[in-house]
Amino acid sequence: MSNGAVPETNPSQFDKADAAFLGDFATLSTFGATAGGGVDRQAGSRADGEQRSWFTQLLTDNGFTVSFDQIGNQFGLLELEVGKPYVVVGSHLDSQPTAGRYDGAYGVLAAAHAAFRLAAEWQAAGLSPRYNLAVVNWFNEEGSRFKPSMMGSSVYTGKMTVDAALATTDPAGITVREALASTDALGEGSGPKAAYCSEIHIEQGRSMERDGIAIGVVDSNWAANKYEFVVHGEQAHTGSTVIADRHDAILGASLLVVAARKIADHFPDGAVHTSVGQLDVYPNSPVVVPSRVNLLLDLRSADEALLQEADRMLHERIEQIERSAQVEVEKVGSHCWPVTPYQAEGVALAEKIVANRGVSHARVKTLAGHDSTNMKDIVPTVMLFVPSVEGISHNEHEYTTDQDIVTGLHVLTDVVRSLCEGELDLL
Amino acid sequence: MSNGAVPETNPSQFDKADAAFLGDFATLSTFGATAGGGVDRQAGSRADGEQRSWFTQLLTDNGFTVSFDQIGNQFGLLELEVGKPYVVVGSHLDSQPTAGRYDGAYGVLAAAHAAFRLAAEWQAAGLSPRYNLAVVNWFNEEGSRFKPSMMGSSVYTGKMTVDAALATTDPAGITVREALASTDALGEGSGPKAAYCSEIHIEQGRSMERDGIAIGVVDSNWAANKYEFVVHGEQAHTGSTVIADRHDAILGASLLVVAARKIADHFPDGAVHTSVGQLDVYPNSPVVVPSRVNLLLDLRSADEALLQEADRMLHERIEQIERSAQVEVEKVGSHCWPVTPYQAEGVALAEKIVANRGVSHARVKTLAGHDSTNMKDIVPTVMLFVPSVEGISHNEHEYTTDQDIVTGLHVLTDVVRSLCEGELDLL
Repeated sequence: MSNGAVPETNPSQFDKADAAFLGDFATLSTFGATAGGGVDRQAGSRADGEQRSWFTQLLTDNGFTVSFDQIGNQFGLLELEVGKPYVVVGSHLDSQPTAGRYDGAYGVLAAAHAAFRLAAEWQAAGLSPRYNLAVVNWFNEEGSRFKPSMMGSSVYTGKMTVDAALATTDPAGITVREALASTDALGEGSGPKAAYCSEIHIEQGRSMERDGIAIGVVDSNWAANKYEFVVHGEQAHTGSTVIADRHDAILGASLLVVAARKIADHFPDGAVHTSVGQLDVYPNSPVVVPSRVNLLLDLRSADEALLQEADRMLHERIEQIERSAQVEVEKVGSHCWPVTPYQAEGVALAEKIVANRGVSHARVKTLAGHDSTNMKDIVPTVMLFVPSVEGISHNEHEYTTDQDIVTGLHVLTDVVRSLCEGELDLL
Repeated sequence: MSNGAVPETNPSQFDKADAAFLGDFATLSTFGATAGGGVDRQAGSRADGEQRSWFTQLLTDNGFTVSFDQIGNQFGLLELEVGKPYVVVGSHLDSQPTAGRYDGAYGVLAAAHAAFRLAAEWQAAGLSPRYNLAVVNWFNEEGSRFKPSMMGSSVYTGKMTVDAALATTDPAGITVREALASTDALGEGSGPKAAYCSEIHIEQGRSMERDGIAIGVVDSNWAANKYEFVVHGEQAHTGSTVIADRHDAILGASLLVVAARKIADHFPDGAVHTSVGQLDVYPNSPVVVPSRVNLLLDLRSADEALLQEADRMLHERIEQIERSAQVEVEKVGSHCWPVTPYQAEGVALAEKIVANRGVSHARVKTLAGHDSTNMKDIVPTVMLFVPSVEGISHNEHEYTTDQDIVTGLHVLTDVVRSLCEGELDLL
């Protein structure tokens, strides 16, 4: 269902600095490497600890000071003038299980290499920019092992308390605090003070590839309603219990999964995306009608009115399912966010830079959540995308060409330079 | 959804021997007791080991010799004449997680108390019956931790090799061999040679309660087609991947669950039962479209022609689901059995006994699998049912009245006496 082609990196077509970046990306891709060409380095895992140690070394080798904050966000600091706030640039190194090599990792490494270039540039010129510079590897953006996703940036931006985050457990009962301690990533304090933020990421969709666009300037995120439901039934014998007596939680849950897809199909042109990614059955035994199913169901749209209509349809359908499957559907959690724009001045800055470089570009929206969608709520933030081949993501076959990730690095370097030099202060 | 009433045992209304049986049943119910009034003692668990030790003590206190065979079947032997084959009577003590107290455990304890009475009776009369007597606690009838179900009796009857059974792993990777060794239940050899078999069990349905029947004489089992399917999709991002590009394994699996129920609903009067009890999602992460779902789907009917028609409908539906959800449905396992009768002479014997006792009775079929459905394929086997209140089973609220379980014990004692004395030899 994908070509899965992963051409070998050929650094000879790039200059020395870009080849070094591609070489470091190849090295980074070996941490938690899977047989299928992807990576498995969930937050706080051994592979995550190992890549963080490697990244610490890379940053210190390039003159940056590394520190971890109270929730394990990893910062590489270039403090050119004590006390000044920072331009914070980066993404996340953690991954889904059997994930691709680009998601998050590309943005972290591009941030580091952009920062290395700028540090060398300022040193050579004897310049000190208006802001200090911090490379960041946010903790647990993926949320696959520890929920919710975007945990590190949520604590940094005050959307989640550090106590709640550290007490979160994985399915084996291990806390975030324990996982961070075991990977030498549990620090103190709340990290450097941000003045601006930037992040570059793969698109994870196929619109840029389709339109032949090298750089996407993200102007807003889609709205999303994310729900955790528990479908309650009654345990019974799968063989001997007559159908009319059953209160089958797995039937109720399955009807919900099907209803979610039907809602997406109801709206034209991909205007609404729905999904169930996680679903757990209890007691999950071959001959027991399940009494309980926990599942996570998402509705997303760029149009808040459509999202509201989809949400209404979902809740109407839930009432029908409760009656037809003789189950109870309980909503035990929800996490909803509206369409919120990235700051217009940041979008304009990025557009000016890509235009100056003669790079094909367009405004795009992010359907996925990113650490930058947290950061933009506290400081002006510039979010850039590079294309994803066939839109494949959260998949070992995730791929972006070397040319595209190098172009992204160049643009990011220009954006971070402008932010550090205070170009947005003047607007 | 059930009254859940569990009246206290009041042994004073029963004679001393029956009160002792009820007292032992109350003690047995404390092993792996759950807060909800049920038990959790999956095969090879600590609670299973503890109840087996207690049962060994009970058997030896009553003059029986205890041994475990190569797959952990626990036998209490009364060898009155060396070399003669045995009447094997019993059921299983292992349970589903959060199960009821009666399933299996009632049949084992009733077998033991029937055997104790007969041993005392023969000793008092100075008689030696035609066959020796073995009480059995079959290993892993439930199959919730180690698949397949009815493992101990399958090995005993040659339907499964001991090597395959011992190598079976639970979800944590622990083998049957390890679990048996850790509970001191791994023996040697293939157990006593059987001449006849008997088992008593709760109905796990509501037909006997509805019809006011105290003893069901089981004359055959339902046919069943049990399948393990793997639904194959492709990992993708739940937010950013457009719906048309998705190969969503959880959607395919959900359509299968719904299809199974629709097939059951297609046939009148509960003629076909269908269910999915177990379903596992990979990677089961909040923001990843699942690439793989494993599930177990059962079809059952007393009418093989209807089962065949239901099976045809299922496979037709699978092809539609593969197209509509853009997934592939792979059948990785199947376990099918036809309607097979219990021996007519055993049915007639049981009917004569209940008629002599003036107990209300009827012929019934078993919808669930039992160890006796294995045993009947190698020796003449008598299977008896007692009623289940509201048909509730595989549920902490499973309940059968003290009067009904005592009546069952009386009838089982008569059946086992007749079998030991060779009454079926003469037919």
